[in-house]
Amino acid sequence: MFGAGDVRIETVADARVIEPTDALVAVTRACICGSDLWPYKTMEHSETGRVMGHEAIGGVEAVGADVRTMKVGDVVVMPFAYSDGTCVFCHEGLHTSCVHGGFFGTEEVAGAQAEAVRVPLADGTLFVLPGGRDDALMPSLLTLSDVMGTGHHAAVAAKVGPGKTVAVVGDGAVGLCGVIAARRLGAEQIIILGRHADRVALAREFGATDVVSERGDEAVERVRELTGSFGVHSVLECVGLEQSMLTAVSIARPGGAVGRVGVPQNEMMPASQPAFYNNVTVSGGPAPVRAYIEELLPDVLEGRIEPGRVFDRVIGLDEVPDGYRAMNEREAIKVMVKL
Amino acid sequence: MFGAGDVRIETVADARVIEPTDALVAVTRACICGSDLWPYKTMEHSETGRVMGHEAIGGVEAVGADVRTMKVGDVVVMPFAYSDGTCVFCHEGLHTSCVHGGFFGTEEVAGAQAEAVRVPLADGTLFVLPGGRDDALMPSLLTLSDVMGTGHHAAVAAKVGPGKTVAVVGDGAVGLCGVIAARRLGAEQIIILGRHADRVALAREFGATDVVSERGDEAVERVRELTGSFGVHSVLECVGLEQSMLTAVSIARPGGAVGRVGVPQNEMMPASQPAFYNNVTVSGGPAPVRAYIEELLPDVLEGRIEPGRVFDRVIGLDEVPDGYRAMNEREAIKVMVKL
Repeated sequence: MFGAGDVRIETVADARVIEPTDALVAVTRACICGSDLWPYKTMEHSETGRVMGHEAIGGVEAVGADVRTMKVGDVVVMPFAYSDGTCVFCHEGLHTSCVHGGFFGTEEVAGAQAEAVRVPLADGTLFVLPGGRDDALMPSLLTLSDVMGTGHHAAVAAKVGPGKTVAVVGDGAVGLCGVIAARRLGAEQIIILGRHADRVALAREFGATDVVSERGDEAVERVRELTGSFGVHSVLECVGLEQSMLTAVSIARPGGAVGRVGVPQNEMMPASQPAFYNNVTVSGGPAPVRAYIEELLPDVLEGRIEPGRVFDRVIGLDEVPDGYRAMNEREAIKVMVKL
Repeated sequence: MFGAGDVRIETVADARVIEPTDALVAVTRACICGSDLWPYKTMEHSETGRVMGHEAIGGVEAVGADVRTMKVGDVVVMPFAYSDGTCVFCHEGLHTSCVHGGFFGTEEVAGAQAEAVRVPLADGTLFVLPGGRDDALMPSLLTLSDVMGTGHHAAVAAKVGPGKTVAVVGDGAVGLCGVIAARRLGAEQIIILGRHADRVALAREFGATDVVSERGDEAVERVRELTGSFGVHSVLECVGLEQSMLTAVSIARPGGAVGRVGVPQNEMMPASQPAFYNNVTVSGGPAPVRAYIEELLPDVLEGRIEPGRVFDRVIGLDEVPDGYRAMNEREAIKVMVKL
């Protein structure tokens, strides 16, 4: 990406092992993330460009001398953050705050919308998939690198549990995975706030019990009607805008919790006072998806959850610029790049 | 209070039982709250004035026909909010969101800086103290009506627990009670952020292990130095200003929690992005002190905690206007009104 709206396919220097803790992964599946659309809308022009992409599955092509837990040929899930797996925060399950970690697709570390990607701290970062893989499961496995883990994080941060009432703000891929996560954790009522017919239809298939397509005060009113006037126990904020955060705080019932995973576009959080007076907890942030793969994987392998259904378009690497356009214009929910 | 800086002693109509669920309480101890200083600074002039005060201990003088759990002569603690004790939120321990509840010292219900106060929903609201009271315990018992319960709420919201590192932002009476609460819940390191010599000295006696008297970025830097660069697990925000909230979020370590009980003076919460990127939880609100009395009372009765030491001035009812002045000018930490 060379700037807002300017995504190009370029031949760059081959990714390779640099540090002894690196692995080189040949990407077989990658995707475009809703969060990639923020720079797609706002990035200043750059002469050198940025190799985008932070979600991938691929095969290990080479490993550094210190890599112990994988070998060439292993198929791995690459979470959107790299992490050493050994620091205090990794031990606490917060791999996105790893003291030696960082993020793919940044200035520092090239991304995975590419033929290959250098993965720092491979032992801590990559998750080796069990053998005997079914190709049909690949889309769902790919979501473990970000969106499914992120939806799950929102649900955990929002304290979803058996019998709880839940609202999911946003019908993008993360919101849809949030619906899956909420149902998986036992929510009784799951209200999706969204206005795209195809997406809310999928949300219903994933377990949403109610759809609210209003916005702003009307949405708040509607959620209250659906919840005996109190609002919901748990809100999954999967957008990151001022308006969506305001709605999220306003539809939480007293003592409820908002789990936010939409990257906030504002320095300030609205509705400090309603959140305060209602003792609403606001939690969440970049999801430590690495920590969640072990928990979510069995459900994917056994078909109990199918987050891969959020991919409604599959493209080749050459088509990535059009993939951005399609996601940005809401033509596609989420685009998978298949190599 | 008739407006900013305008507190008067007036003879008003006697408080009396109106609803059958009311009790009439003769106030023996009341106090001035840090939150009373907000209207003291900003209240618009009112012809009728507002009877202030939301913290009291007193004797039951009369009860309505439906009051079951107390009798004339009982000595009771009056939490700053009234609540029915039976609604869904009271059952969840969030009495400050009681569906039939409200707050003392408001336009709706007169306050306790008075000879007597009408207490709605007496069975749910009041806590009857056990007999054989020691007068020396009265100050500490009085804090159960607000500040000690509020400090405890901040600690609970900030997830204080054994071995945790804690910072308390604000050295007012609530912050000092927050130190007591943090120590009581097993915190290992307790950093008080404050700059009043008398208050931080008391904080140390209550269990604070470190004092940070810097503000802003320097305070953040200092807390990081004291905590191996990461920040603390738990922050108790006991002020409510934009600057204090910004500091609170900035000194929480990744995955940490801010428990805020300082009434927020801003519609917006600063530092949305740092809180997000560090997965910092922001929780708290008006403390359901009614829910905490049972837990805290034995420690008060047995002298394990002495929150009553936050009162450094005792006045009569006639002196209340000067009590406001003294607290506002930081001459007194907290003023007790003894009748």
